[in-house]
Amino acid sequence: MKRLGIHSFVWTGGQTQEGLEMALEKSAEHGYRCIEFAYLRPELFDLDRLAKKSQELDVQIGVTMGLPLDKDVSSEDPDAVAAGKAMLADAVRAVRDVGGDKLGGILYSAHTKYNRQPTADGWKNSVQAIAETAEIAQAAGVDLVLELVNRFETNLLNTTAQGMKFIAETGNDHVRLHMDTFHMQMEEANLAAAIRMAGDKIGYFHIGESNRGYLGDGTIDWDPVFDALVEIGYNRDVVFESFSTAIVDEGLSLACAIWRDTWTENDPLAAHAKQFIEQKWAEAERRRATNIRA
Amino acid sequence: MKRLGIHSFVWTGGQTQEGLEMALEKSAEHGYRCIEFAYLRPELFDLDRLAKKSQELDVQIGVTMGLPLDKDVSSEDPDAVAAGKAMLADAVRAVRDVGGDKLGGILYSAHTKYNRQPTADGWKNSVQAIAETAEIAQAAGVDLVLELVNRFETNLLNTTAQGMKFIAETGNDHVRLHMDTFHMQMEEANLAAAIRMAGDKIGYFHIGESNRGYLGDGTIDWDPVFDALVEIGYNRDVVFESFSTAIVDEGLSLACAIWRDTWTENDPLAAHAKQFIEQKWAEAERRRATNIRA
Amino acid sequence: MKRLGIHSFVWTGGQTQEGLEMALEKSAEHGYRCIEFAYLRPELFDLDRLAKKSQELDVQIGVTMGLPLDKDVSSEDPDAVAAGKAMLADAVRAVRDVGGDKLGGILYSAHTKYNRQPTADGWKNSVQAIAETAEIAQAAGVDLVLELVNRFETNLLNTTAQGMKFIAETGNDHVRLHMDTFHMQMEEANLAAAIRMAGDKIGYFHIGESNRGYLGDGTIDWDPVFDALVEIGYNRDVVFESFSTAIVDEGLSLACAIWRDTWTENDPLAAHAKQFIEQKWAEAERRRATNIRA
Amino acid sequence: MKRLGIHSFVWTGGQTQEGLEMALEKSAEHGYRCIEFAYLRPELFDLDRLAKKSQELDVQIGVTMGLPLDKDVSSEDPDAVAAGKAMLADAVRAVRDVGGDKLGGILYSAHTKYNRQPTADGWKNSVQAIAETAEIAQAAGVDLVLELVNRFETNLLNTTAQGMKFIAETGNDHVRLHMDTFHMQMEEANLAAAIRMAGDKIGYFHIGESNRGYLGDGTIDWDPVFDALVEIGYNRDVVFESFSTAIVDEGLSLACAIWRDTWTENDPLAAHAKQFIEQKWAEAERRRATNIRA
Repeated sequence: MKRLGIHSFVWTGGQTQEGLEMALEKSAEHGYRCIEFAYLRPELFDLDRLAKKSQELDVQIGVTMGLPLDKDVSSEDPDAVAAGKAMLADAVRAVRDVGGDKLGGILYSAHTKYNRQPTADGWKNSVQAIAETAEIAQAAGVDLVLELVNRFETNLLNTTAQGMKFIAETGNDHVRLHMDTFHMQMEEANLAAAIRMAGDKIGYFHIGESNRGYLGDGTIDWDPVFDALVEIGYNRDVVFESFSTAIVDEGLSLACAIWRDTWTENDPLAAHAKQFIEQKWAEAERRRATNIRA
Repeated sequence: MKRLGIHSFVWTGGQTQEGLEMALEKSAEHGYRCIEFAYLRPELFDLDRLAKKSQELDVQIGVTMGLPLDKDVSSEDPDAVAAGKAMLADAVRAVRDVGGDKLGGILYSAHTKYNRQPTADGWKNSVQAIAETAEIAQAAGVDLVLELVNRFETNLLNTTAQGMKFIAETGNDHVRLHMDTFHMQMEEANLAAAIRMAGDKIGYFHIGESNRGYLGDGTIDWDPVFDALVEIGYNRDVVFESFSTAIVDEGLSLACAIWRDTWTENDPLAAHAKQFIEQKWAEAERRRATNIRA
Repeated sequence: MKRLGIHSFVWTGGQTQEGLEMALEKSAEHGYRCIEFAYLRPELFDLDRLAKKSQELDVQIGVTMGLPLDKDVSSEDPDAVAAGKAMLADAVRAVRDVGGDKLGGILYSAHTKYNRQPTADGWKNSVQAIAETAEIAQAAGVDLVLELVNRFETNLLNTTAQGMKFIAETGNDHVRLHMDTFHMQMEEANLAAAIRMAGDKIGYFHIGESNRGYLGDGTIDWDPVFDALVEIGYNRDVVFESFSTAIVDEGLSLACAIWRDTWTENDPLAAHAKQFIEQKWAEAERRRATNIRA
Repeated sequence: MKRLGIHSFVWTGGQTQEGLEMALEKSAEHGYRCIEFAYLRPELFDLDRLAKKSQELDVQIGVTMGLPLDKDVSSEDPDAVAAGKAMLADAVRAVRDVGGDKLGGILYSAHTKYNRQPTADGWKNSVQAIAETAEIAQAAGVDLVLELVNRFETNLLNTTAQGMKFIAETGNDHVRLHMDTFHMQMEEANLAAAIRMAGDKIGYFHIGESNRGYLGDGTIDWDPVFDALVEIGYNRDVVFESFSTAIVDEGLSLACAIWRDTWTENDPLAAHAKQFIEQKWAEAERRRATNIRA
């Protein structure tokens, strides 16, 4: 991996400039080298100041978001699609302005529990919107990564195979996949095989436990995940994500159905996650070396 | 286990009398000894005829359901709670009339992706409603089992520990837990430990894969699950559940977010599930015997 | 896989012609399409008769063996090496004469718990002996496969990586690996990765549980093993192997340290193994198909 | 657990007084609070000096051994049995004299790859010898723990069930089991179930990987092991064991069939093992807490 990072919601609900700056500082303090923010409306935050702090601390910023239903690019409603494209273009610019290097998340549909089946026209609209956004992103020097999430958070891209088909249809090499173990545990038949299948198309990787709490405190069988990442030589960013009722962004908490406190103290959580991921990665590398040593 | 059964949605969307009768026949043909129906509105179906067919085929009927939001007994709105209690009482009677032996599912809240946090008053209302329903069910000779489901399908009872607390508060030994591996895989820290903790309080058990498709085609580590069921001497019903877009009850498909066809043919699915469960159970019994044999 | 087979020691200690013929019949009766015999001294058995029965029943014969210490081709003693080469040449001829298609097992060293470290000269002697035997085998139309076994049964080739290095040094494409899950469970860091690394160099594959008893009655995590075999498109023979004190070849029982009866009845064992392997293989194929289906 | 320790063979072949003292120091330096020595012949070592150093460093000494064939208490030869008892009594005294608190290992038979089946008379002789040794040990304030090892290192006690039967027959509560994950991985049907079955009868616990190398670099599924130790409230010593050709006691290397260097540097190995075990233990405790938290 290139850099190990952490989601800002471990530190803050993200409502204030002070909260975001504190999150950058806490991440740096724990030795994380990148951070994930939710989409920051430029009129509410001082992006320059965040960019500067990120540089000073050597903590790279990435941004993720999900579209609202009225800006859903997978809709059959042209107005919603147009509004969604505009929002994505704005988001790319905000990522660039905050010194971020990637825009990820549910960019291809709304972030919601859908109450309708996906449609072929909606899929096409979404492919087109992402293809257009990719050109804007490429010009802005921002990576574009599409998060594959579970069925309760989108109806369009739940699996790696769907994601691979989607990005192929965009016809744009700048679009990659944003994979997340929490979602994969629900949707994939085989996490390791999915990672190996996606290979170099993985642009961003979330490490989250099956119940969104402490790593190791759920059902994910981690060793094959790390084996697969090592096997494909994954060398982009890896970010730890965990949500609790202890720290709340209300919109995200509801979209993600966070009803329980899987933890209350964030410092030990962040310290554990860093040790867990680094140790698992080292063990996977050792297994690989052992495996080939005659 | 007492009987191995199958959910009727493997066979039919459940809209017609003919569909339900066919489902009973297909279940019997495959050697299943119980079946699960969704709540049957007595005015739409000939319950007597279903009861008779169930007896003839020796396929025991069980019924599951989830409350709608306007009849949510975990609401703070007294009208919704009253309407929910009435619906539960009606459901108990329908189960009795169709010759069923159990009522399960999300009886304690709505079956929905909530957009609000659970509340203490809502919890109390729900406990009270279930306590009252339990008396009606006991009098009717119907078992009452509460399904623990994932965060996207209720906000009240996601884990076994929550379920144990809830049934303790009802003060009624007639209420037991309805556990389901699909939901446990998302919410529990340790499936086997949850099963051992619940022990005799498990009144009904759903076997479903992590992606709701073929058993073995997902991420659940099955051997510890069967080991735990054997260890506690579980001897109530076990039912296989799988959903696909191939067979659809629209309401359930949307509530459960079924966007993909994990299978298209139900006969091989049903045959495989029976072999899978019976083989895994036998292997768990053998492991246990091997383990203690000096 | 090409054919699913079973080791003859499930049926017989292998001391008599009648025992071997019965073993062929039992294997056919259970639907196995190949069988493994231990090396048959031509002066003690009617090889023609076995060959004919094998053809009639359509049960392909394969033969495995381990060298005795006084014929150890990994020795530094030229007399032992020469005696070993002669024994291997004799064995190839016997395999051909019995209508067998492969010679496997511990052909490159003694089958024993060694009391000395392996040596560089012994390794060279062994490579040379196998290279020579490979030419004889190729001429005889017999596949030559080297079994990687645990540290207590040889000191030379315990891992896949060692085996790959060894066969590369023979410079002969006719030599392949004979892999066995029982041994791999002890020696490999990662069974699936070893299978994928060996790929087309796997010439024969043993399915045995960690304690040599019923499949599923030990510690092997089977799904990744079958996933890897399916992923590499393994299409040579797979043979089930299990030993118990219930049926005994004294030499093999001592070499393999069989002190316990992991089973007493062989018919249910053989029926279970066939169902287990075929079901696991089908599940692995389904996982792979699910994984790539968009 | 009470104390986390490490086997001295990570540090030294154990041939010299200086080597053993260095091993005590290295263990203390890495934060281990106990150490395991192989049986120390009192005439060759200064036991007082070791005892004093152990006290100063607060690193508790434990001793393990295996009997030689000519002192095999599971023999049918009365002379061997008598010689074995004498050796065990001497060993108990040496443990006491070096300030040790436990004697473990293969005390009930030879430590060898047997070339004969175990016998009923041999079992009785062994039970009797251990019962007598237990009284001596109890009087000396030394715990007596019997190591269950794989089939290639004894023919008598390979499984927990056999060990439970054996210690029950000694009729002496002072005898407990010495369990070891390396051996369990080969012999048990279910490691966690074996640990739960043994419960309070576990007197000592070895953590070793399936290939005797780095933890995590083999096939053991560790989480259920730690879950079970936490579940039974295990609170005696846990010791990490790993062997490589990098550090050699020739007798033990041959008995244990150590032909490969699973590692060459012991400091990173020891540091990793400590972190691995402590992290896994903490994760198991967290899983347990999460599991029961409503």
